[in-house]
Amino acid sequence: MKKVKIGLIGFGTVGTGVVKLLKRNKELIAEKTGVLPVIEKIADLDITTDRGVEIPDGILTTNINDVLNNPDIDVVIELVGGTTYARDFVEKALKNGKAVVTANKALLADCGEDLFNLAYEKSLDFYYEASVAGGIPIIKALRESLSSNNINTVYGILNGTCNYILSRMEDEGTAFDEILKDAQKAGYAEADPTFDIDGIDTAHKTIVLASLAFGNWFNMDDVHVEGIRGIDLLDFKYAAKLGYRIKLLSIIKNTSDGIEMSVRPTLVPADSLIGSVHGVYNCVWINSDWLGNSMYYGQGAGEKATASAVVSDVIDIALNLKNNASNRIPAFTKGTRFKGLLGEENSRGRFYLRIQLANRPGVFGEIATVFGEYGISLASVDQKEIDQNKKMAQVVVLTHDANQNSLNSALEKIRQFDEAGKNIVVFKIEDFE
Amino acid sequence: MKKVKIGLIGFGTVGTGVVKLLKRNKELIAEKTGVLPVIEKIADLDITTDRGVEIPDGILTTNINDVLNNPDIDVVIELVGGTTYARDFVEKALKNGKAVVTANKALLADCGEDLFNLAYEKSLDFYYEASVAGGIPIIKALRESLSSNNINTVYGILNGTCNYILSRMEDEGTAFDEILKDAQKAGYAEADPTFDIDGIDTAHKTIVLASLAFGNWFNMDDVHVEGIRGIDLLDFKYAAKLGYRIKLLSIIKNTSDGIEMSVRPTLVPADSLIGSVHGVYNCVWINSDWLGNSMYYGQGAGEKATASAVVSDVIDIALNLKNNASNRIPAFTKGTRFKGLLGEENSRGRFYLRIQLANRPGVFGEIATVFGEYGISLASVDQKEIDQNKKMAQVVVLTHDANQNSLNSALEKIRQFDEAGKNIVVFKIEDFE
Repeated sequence: MKKVKIGLIGFGTVGTGVVKLLKRNKELIAEKTGVLPVIEKIADLDITTDRGVEIPDGILTTNINDVLNNPDIDVVIELVGGTTYARDFVEKALKNGKAVVTANKALLADCGEDLFNLAYEKSLDFYYEASVAGGIPIIKALRESLSSNNINTVYGILNGTCNYILSRMEDEGTAFDEILKDAQKAGYAEADPTFDIDGIDTAHKTIVLASLAFGNWFNMDDVHVEGIRGIDLLDFKYAAKLGYRIKLLSIIKNTSDGIEMSVRPTLVPADSLIGSVHGVYNCVWINSDWLGNSMYYGQGAGEKATASAVVSDVIDIALNLKNNASNRIPAFTKGTRFKGLLGEENSRGRFYLRIQLANRPGVFGEIATVFGEYGISLASVDQKEIDQNKKMAQVVVLTHDANQNSLNSALEKIRQFDEAGKNIVVFKIEDFE
Repeated sequence: MKKVKIGLIGFGTVGTGVVKLLKRNKELIAEKTGVLPVIEKIADLDITTDRGVEIPDGILTTNINDVLNNPDIDVVIELVGGTTYARDFVEKALKNGKAVVTANKALLADCGEDLFNLAYEKSLDFYYEASVAGGIPIIKALRESLSSNNINTVYGILNGTCNYILSRMEDEGTAFDEILKDAQKAGYAEADPTFDIDGIDTAHKTIVLASLAFGNWFNMDDVHVEGIRGIDLLDFKYAAKLGYRIKLLSIIKNTSDGIEMSVRPTLVPADSLIGSVHGVYNCVWINSDWLGNSMYYGQGAGEKATASAVVSDVIDIALNLKNNASNRIPAFTKGTRFKGLLGEENSRGRFYLRIQLANRPGVFGEIATVFGEYGISLASVDQKEIDQNKKMAQVVVLTHDANQNSLNSALEKIRQFDEAGKNIVVFKIEDFE
């Protein structure tokens, strides 16, 4: 039985899950895989709080060097999060000849390529299954199962907090702010929810998926990001009537003019598989040239699911160490197939628009005329409740496939109609056809 | 670049897909993985039919020994299907020191363990990703990504032909026989559809999944199998009214009293993810102790999707050969965790029953009394259209959780009520709770 010694950095929720899993399912892992991962050291600033799992003496330490400079340790698991310390720890671990497992998407989005290069130079494994979609084995699927496929499109629901909030807004008709507060109380949202609800976390994960898919390490400047703050309940209602739900979607498309990468609230068909992913669940939907459509679904966060992904990486590394086959599959391989970015302004799609204007004779005709000028053809126009007192007209428009740039120009012109027109709601629609 | 030489046995639909994929995406595979799989020989009885792909001279052969005894060949892909010849070919390939890839679930269900033992003795890889759920990377997920997890439950839609027929019956209200004929014309069903529609193919795949999950190689006697022949349109209609769809489900449950394995038409919630898997698509839904619920979805058959799975195995083997790490993960590991089978008669579940009886005063009361006698509690009873001329009564009953044995006894008693009662329709319900 090959024993592999682990140094864990970060004894928070996921770290605790990893320790518990390696303890409780020790025999199972050994029986299934022939390797035995053993926790050698756990480094954290807080080593006194009870995590509900018994730790033998001599394992816990507040001194990071007990992990990084420990000659007995084969694998370092980095679970501190953030970029500053985490980068330092990962670099030192690799320089000291230790394989690394991380769940840190922010770190990978920030400096993934440098770290992969370092791991490659040192012939060390550096794995990150838990960084995207929590427990769902999507990194292994992309890196290994789909390695013979050209990736055409990736859609992801990658942030459980956002999906929880959007699902509840939709199901209950309760406003964003109230549900956010609830989610914070229930532990589904952070005290500072910016990273989640402004789409930054989803963008980090989008970078990891797109980089792996296209053999080029991307960064935040390459992703168009919109979050879910301020989504109006009215749009859930109108979307539902049209057969759609609103999801914060990670969208990666390999178009003939370049790679499109965006994170945005998107209308998806209510009866589609992605439309059926509710609450804190995540999913990744992939279209590739040989496998066709495939989808991977599961828990995107949480102590147990994320620990399962971390431990699957540890086992992979242990099997490589057992067979003297480190770097059997590099964490990331730079390729020649990336030809450039599409750019948000050049992207295309169908759009849902909610336009509010002062009601006067002929105003709808004028709107339609503007869209026509910019070559945008309309799939449906639906006039909504008109407030006779305020003399406001509201119209929901679905377009056919249109260019983002042309749409922006048309909307700019419509915004000049009157003061009310300044707040046009715009969502892209993805139909998975 | 590590070149790996392949001998392909069986140049049918999937074999042709493999040849095309390795040709068209050759550079992509090399760039992503650092290995280059090359077709060295293709053996088939028919080497003259044009498969739409150009084959260089000297590759095609009708002599199986050009593959099996060829010292240049590293990996044999077995795609002849069936058990007799396939077993002989796989055994000879392994005995001659060649790694093997197969898509043959019938072979694995029949003698998987013997073949795995042989591969293990010879320290050779023997992979079978394409044997279950076509292109979906479910074998790798179970074997690697979930190797730290105890598997509680597996549900699968594993036969595209059946799911295509059931989806169309449901959507169009067209009878089984007519859709089967259509499916045969369209190439979605075989001329002899027995293996598919009688659930045998799904049972083979169930054996592969359960064996991998529980570390014990099962056989057909261990699986309770019911097919979809003769399903009545009426039951789709009644199920839909109750919020259910009917799917041919592979069901594997690790209960405290043993492993339950069955294949049967099952009512699943229409708004569940599994209920949303339509047409020729497959899915596997897993509940495990750390990852929780996860689902894997994609094309369960076809030239391209299945070829993608076969080639992913070839690449895994090539990476092992490159790193002198053959048998890095054994194809199957016998474990100690299997404690016995539950047996169909001891299984539990909720049931959908459609009972037809001669209509006479008090008949429903009598039925309810019988269920009560056997401790079966009813969730709903719905009296359906009564044919006044024939004096027939029809009732649809949903039970609460009940023992299969008790249900069988109760139904036996109800069948004795009158001649009409002999044809009681019984489906299990799975709610994914």
